[in-house]
Amino acid sequence: MSASPLKIGLAGFGNVGAGVYKNIEKNRHLLRERTGRDLIVTRIAVKDLEKARPIELPADIVTTDLDALTSDKEIDLIVELIGGIDRAFELVKTSLENGKAVVTGNKALLAERGQELFAIAEKHGKPIYYEAAVAGGIPIIKTVQESLIGNHIQSVAGIINGTCNYILTRMSEAGLDYKEALGEAQALGYAEADPTLDVNGWDAAHKAIILASLSYGCWVPCDQIHVEGIENVNATDIGFAEKLGYVIKLLGIIQLHEETGSIEVRVQPSLVAKDHILASVKGVFNAILVQGDIVGETLFYGSGAGQDPTSSSVIADIADASYALETSGGSGFVTHGLYGKPMPIEETVSKYYLRVEAEDRPGVLARIATVLGSHDIGILSVIQPEDHDEEYAPIVLMLHFAPFGKVREAINQINAMDCIRDEPIFFRVEDLG
Amino acid sequence: MSASPLKIGLAGFGNVGAGVYKNIEKNRHLLRERTGRDLIVTRIAVKDLEKARPIELPADIVTTDLDALTSDKEIDLIVELIGGIDRAFELVKTSLENGKAVVTGNKALLAERGQELFAIAEKHGKPIYYEAAVAGGIPIIKTVQESLIGNHIQSVAGIINGTCNYILTRMSEAGLDYKEALGEAQALGYAEADPTLDVNGWDAAHKAIILASLSYGCWVPCDQIHVEGIENVNATDIGFAEKLGYVIKLLGIIQLHEETGSIEVRVQPSLVAKDHILASVKGVFNAILVQGDIVGETLFYGSGAGQDPTSSSVIADIADASYALETSGGSGFVTHGLYGKPMPIEETVSKYYLRVEAEDRPGVLARIATVLGSHDIGILSVIQPEDHDEEYAPIVLMLHFAPFGKVREAINQINAMDCIRDEPIFFRVEDLG
Repeated sequence: MSASPLKIGLAGFGNVGAGVYKNIEKNRHLLRERTGRDLIVTRIAVKDLEKARPIELPADIVTTDLDALTSDKEIDLIVELIGGIDRAFELVKTSLENGKAVVTGNKALLAERGQELFAIAEKHGKPIYYEAAVAGGIPIIKTVQESLIGNHIQSVAGIINGTCNYILTRMSEAGLDYKEALGEAQALGYAEADPTLDVNGWDAAHKAIILASLSYGCWVPCDQIHVEGIENVNATDIGFAEKLGYVIKLLGIIQLHEETGSIEVRVQPSLVAKDHILASVKGVFNAILVQGDIVGETLFYGSGAGQDPTSSSVIADIADASYALETSGGSGFVTHGLYGKPMPIEETVSKYYLRVEAEDRPGVLARIATVLGSHDIGILSVIQPEDHDEEYAPIVLMLHFAPFGKVREAINQINAMDCIRDEPIFFRVEDLG
Repeated sequence: MSASPLKIGLAGFGNVGAGVYKNIEKNRHLLRERTGRDLIVTRIAVKDLEKARPIELPADIVTTDLDALTSDKEIDLIVELIGGIDRAFELVKTSLENGKAVVTGNKALLAERGQELFAIAEKHGKPIYYEAAVAGGIPIIKTVQESLIGNHIQSVAGIINGTCNYILTRMSEAGLDYKEALGEAQALGYAEADPTLDVNGWDAAHKAIILASLSYGCWVPCDQIHVEGIENVNATDIGFAEKLGYVIKLLGIIQLHEETGSIEVRVQPSLVAKDHILASVKGVFNAILVQGDIVGETLFYGSGAGQDPTSSSVIADIADASYALETSGGSGFVTHGLYGKPMPIEETVSKYYLRVEAEDRPGVLARIATVLGSHDIGILSVIQPEDHDEEYAPIVLMLHFAPFGKVREAINQINAMDCIRDEPIFFRVEDLG
């Protein structure tokens, strides 16, 4: 291989950006040995030149001007870690147009405007790498794109938000309520001061959209997928789930339905059987279960966020880009064709957990069962514990496979019954094979 | 990309070879879309032309002559799935010399003669791919080589033999004894009629050697690593382990010790804490835990054997080779330098589980403790159950971190004591972080 160094423009010097710089420095020798060349950050764009930083940067390589990176003819590769959408889009677009490869960790950017960006990349014959955009240090992008290349991907089910998984784990194992667990996550730096994007499911949703695009070559628009967060998960349901042999996890589900050619993409808190390997993914860890028609069941586990794990993925992308730029210039295999269309959430099928707080008098269960039956929804099991307050009793039902739309309809009817106190709570139960 | 097809010579048409052929046919369209070219098996070398096969092969592409493949100028790539060492070595060597890329799933070949083969490959500028050689469908080779390229690998711990994991899972969960579980594995096709290479640990050892070479660039000679199988694992110890909060797994351990620059490579049945994710790897599944200095803890899980999962890896290698042959011709990153030397097993350190059947009279535990103390081995806990036969009582001790050599010495001394009935049984207890 050539001995000429790869010159990198690093845009963004927040948590991950600083990690990329630090770890390239730290393992410079190893990287040179393995890639056959030096990887050198020659320019860094920061937001604020005056900001105190734990890492000292040579003054002559730092700028606040993104154009100084994209217009620098010496730079081979731009690493986009500025976040956000509009400025990041312009940065990536201009970089590609100026003949540079791009590495990005920006999941929102790709989920919202990936289709446009990959078209621009193709037009200019320059690659975009994005391993860090999904599940931090877990190499799920390369795995699906390259290692499972011979497989039709049948389904993907992922714990792809560490903040939510930490909160749910602590609620389940330490008996904390949602607010306590969230507070703890914030105190430990696992959740932001404003945790909205994590707990409302949208961080996971952006990753699910990217995984769907990789698996099925189809960019599902953000407004066409169903996203629920964990704000409504509470200790009562975690307790009942536990009794039934399940834990509650926030899952991103991606699945092709061959009959209709449509792709199910959704993020929802879901019951997972305790003895399934996904149930043993705890704390801030992420894991992604991928089912392929040849390989069968596979799972990839690791840190889904954090400075170091995420920079491990960025560095792997830089190495890949370095290799590609020296050879063909392409990014390997084609995965962004157009195979499918999103499946409406109403049509997606699973089992369900349903908890109803109903008046404790004869006939109530029969009325609930009648509504479910009239919607063709089978009941798998019922728990009605003896200890409850005098007037209202919780009834927990496990429901058979049914379309989400029908279940929601039935539950709305149940909710309208005069014997029901609070709005019924229901979660999907995922049969993960 | 060019539209010229990649021409493949497939050597070996056993279980995996037939799977590769079948699955390339099955997903031909997908592979063409993703790789940009046709992958065509133009020649197949079989052992016996007359053998009845479930897959019908065009007569004109089948031969019993390996030279017909290696000398065929049209063939770009040889897939070596004939197994064994000497003939496979010649086949791979000749293929490389004749300018062909090679894909192999032959772990014994690489563990025994990988160093020579990679030197030949380098000399001729042609790549060898071997994803299928370790852990079947799990893409661990590419992950360590490419996705973790920026990491110093700190340790690898793998459940890398599905037969053993099936047997241990059934012993643990169904209470079977070793022979019953082995019989069941044979009946289900998870173990060979002669299961020696699986149950004695050598299949796992070959994989561990390959993982060590990838992680540390050092080919550890087969005769310099310590290998134990599962033949001596019994229901009694599985029961005690369970009480102590552990399961027993056959683990391949690979770890660099920076102080000495030496590499620990060993295969041993070991106690793993029940709440560790490796403990939830059951049945014939494999999983590999990789610790990197940047990425932290990662785990890769899937089917470690079988026609389809293994062929998924072979096909991924074929796709990679196809891409490499169209571009640089190389195989990506360099990982086979020479960094380390094997660490003698005596120096390797862990905690231990020790079970002794001793005469049930005063002073015995004190004598055992004295021997351990004189070898600087701390005791973490002791179990001596009340229900036992009248003369001999089992004593189970959990021992603190100590070098294997010292522990073996101490146990030999304990074994020589007149109050000890059977040879003491001990297993390592792995602290997997």
